[in-house]
Amino acid sequence: MLDPAVAATRLAVRSSLAAVPDGSVVLVALSGGADSLALAASAAHEARARGIRLASVTVDHGLQDGSEAVARRAAEQAAALGIDPLVVRVEVGDAGGPEAAAREARYGVLRDAASDAGAAAVLLGHTLDDQAETVLLGLARGAGATSLAGMAPARDDESGVRWLRPLLALRRSVTREACAAQALDPWEDPHNADERFSRVRVRERVLPVLEAELGPGIAEALARTAEQLREDAEAFAEMIDETIEDIVEHAEAGIAVSVPALAANPPALRHRIIRHVVGSEFGVALSRTQTLEVARLVTDWSGQGPIDLPGCEAARRGARVVFTARA
Amino acid sequence: MLDPAVAATRLAVRSSLAAVPDGSVVLVALSGGADSLALAASAAHEARARGIRLASVTVDHGLQDGSEAVARRAAEQAAALGIDPLVVRVEVGDAGGPEAAAREARYGVLRDAASDAGAAAVLLGHTLDDQAETVLLGLARGAGATSLAGMAPARDDESGVRWLRPLLALRRSVTREACAAQALDPWEDPHNADERFSRVRVRERVLPVLEAELGPGIAEALARTAEQLREDAEAFAEMIDETIEDIVEHAEAGIAVSVPALAANPPALRHRIIRHVVGSEFGVALSRTQTLEVARLVTDWSGQGPIDLPGCEAARRGARVVFTARA
Repeated sequence: MLDPAVAATRLAVRSSLAAVPDGSVVLVALSGGADSLALAASAAHEARARGIRLASVTVDHGLQDGSEAVARRAAEQAAALGIDPLVVRVEVGDAGGPEAAAREARYGVLRDAASDAGAAAVLLGHTLDDQAETVLLGLARGAGATSLAGMAPARDDESGVRWLRPLLALRRSVTREACAAQALDPWEDPHNADERFSRVRVRERVLPVLEAELGPGIAEALARTAEQLREDAEAFAEMIDETIEDIVEHAEAGIAVSVPALAANPPALRHRIIRHVVGSEFGVALSRTQTLEVARLVTDWSGQGPIDLPGCEAARRGARVVFTARA
Repeated sequence: MLDPAVAATRLAVRSSLAAVPDGSVVLVALSGGADSLALAASAAHEARARGIRLASVTVDHGLQDGSEAVARRAAEQAAALGIDPLVVRVEVGDAGGPEAAAREARYGVLRDAASDAGAAAVLLGHTLDDQAETVLLGLARGAGATSLAGMAPARDDESGVRWLRPLLALRRSVTREACAAQALDPWEDPHNADERFSRVRVRERVLPVLEAELGPGIAEALARTAEQLREDAEAFAEMIDETIEDIVEHAEAGIAVSVPALAANPPALRHRIIRHVVGSEFGVALSRTQTLEVARLVTDWSGQGPIDLPGCEAARRGARVVFTARA
């Protein structure tokens, strides 16, 4: 009888691949850890039935001793599963901290590989546990739905790559069981136990306390929250896309937004429009406090002067709020 | 010089009372604890300047030995602040657990008192710490923005009572400092240390771990999240209010919703419309799973049969989804 964990990972991959054409090329991001190894194994199984050509991409960040051997071992396991293995060695900078820099480098490699291979999708091994951790890390930032919406199960990015996360509804324990049942030997990343990383502290110390004090099922509740908040964020993004052209005007050295349009929208949209305009025009993410100060040019107008923002300033001019680059 | 904590509570109450007419009657909910005592003291100060007539309402739940003396002591402190004190003794049932039953009873008393007194508002002493705890408790339920939106700083309920929470942006420590600076002697509720209550466990065990592992400022981040998610929830509620009449039709023994209208809305609104219709027609709160199953009658229609829901069933009939009471 098929092991239930193996069955669960295969079913998850099958549903996720339903949106990918038969016979296309699909990449799987393979670190060699339990999540990506279980993902690769079930993808190999599903790919055969669909005539999908599967390749694995293993990124050697060169950050740990023996990383080359780890990458080689992952590639060997991929090959044994009938997957075409690729190992890419990258230099990791330090921009935004070691975690962020390594992630950036990894996604860059995957994006390039997907483009080179004309891949229909890239499969990522994130699980429900990763999603729960992401929500808690977002909670600490306090940036509302955007920071709590977590990772999408399917997302097409600007460069045309489709990212799929088939295992996002499965617990990490399922991927370990699936590896064991298929005699796969996952790599244990020592970074996963390194408590200098906030994600590791969330996993090792925060989630267990939440489970103990608020009852089991907290990881599932966090993932469910992420799913609903992602829907909310997408709905607002769609509303903004539909209206933004009608309410903004490109002005000299900046951009202007209609005050009546901002006033007619509920605060949730008004604040998002302000953030969207500043983000897309000046590449700056406004804080909550800054956003509210700009909104007061609309809702609480009493002749106040221009507002200094990072990279630009905002001023009320008649029936418009004008954002201009700072000299 | 005015103590900074006293100044902060007075400023917060002054802003909150700005929406209340001069000379009106305002109630303050007074347990005798530090939060409500600091609230009462600053309200007394602000009320004098505004000609507002202030009365305190202390609810004696009769659940603890000596609760009568606690209530009397709170009333005496109110009187000493120049506030008209009212003490109401209630019988608390056990519906939904002791915490929920006591809260229900307390709000019932406040609502009745507000109605009797023709009060323009009822002031509640919730602080930023209470808000952060509410968000974490909501997170454990996993019901998305609705359960994370926390408490509103100002809300008019169906019975016409305006609830104000002036201290919602202040830390609990500020109310303690304000009491000390004004020689007020707050009551220490032993329930606040009783770890049978999930809120107490959140306060005593969960929040300190989050602070330690994710950095200080987590309570503020949670409160900021609540504020943004409340905005989002209000925006969606407004959109539903504006469109619901056009897309539903009362049918025999039930209610019907237009399939094209549901299909045209993004998932966040579609799911909320489904929950709204079932909630308002049958008084039932659908789970996420149930809501998604109903949505599939619209987005993934392949002739599936009626769906059993608590208190009703949902079925696709041509271009409508019809909800009917179960026989």
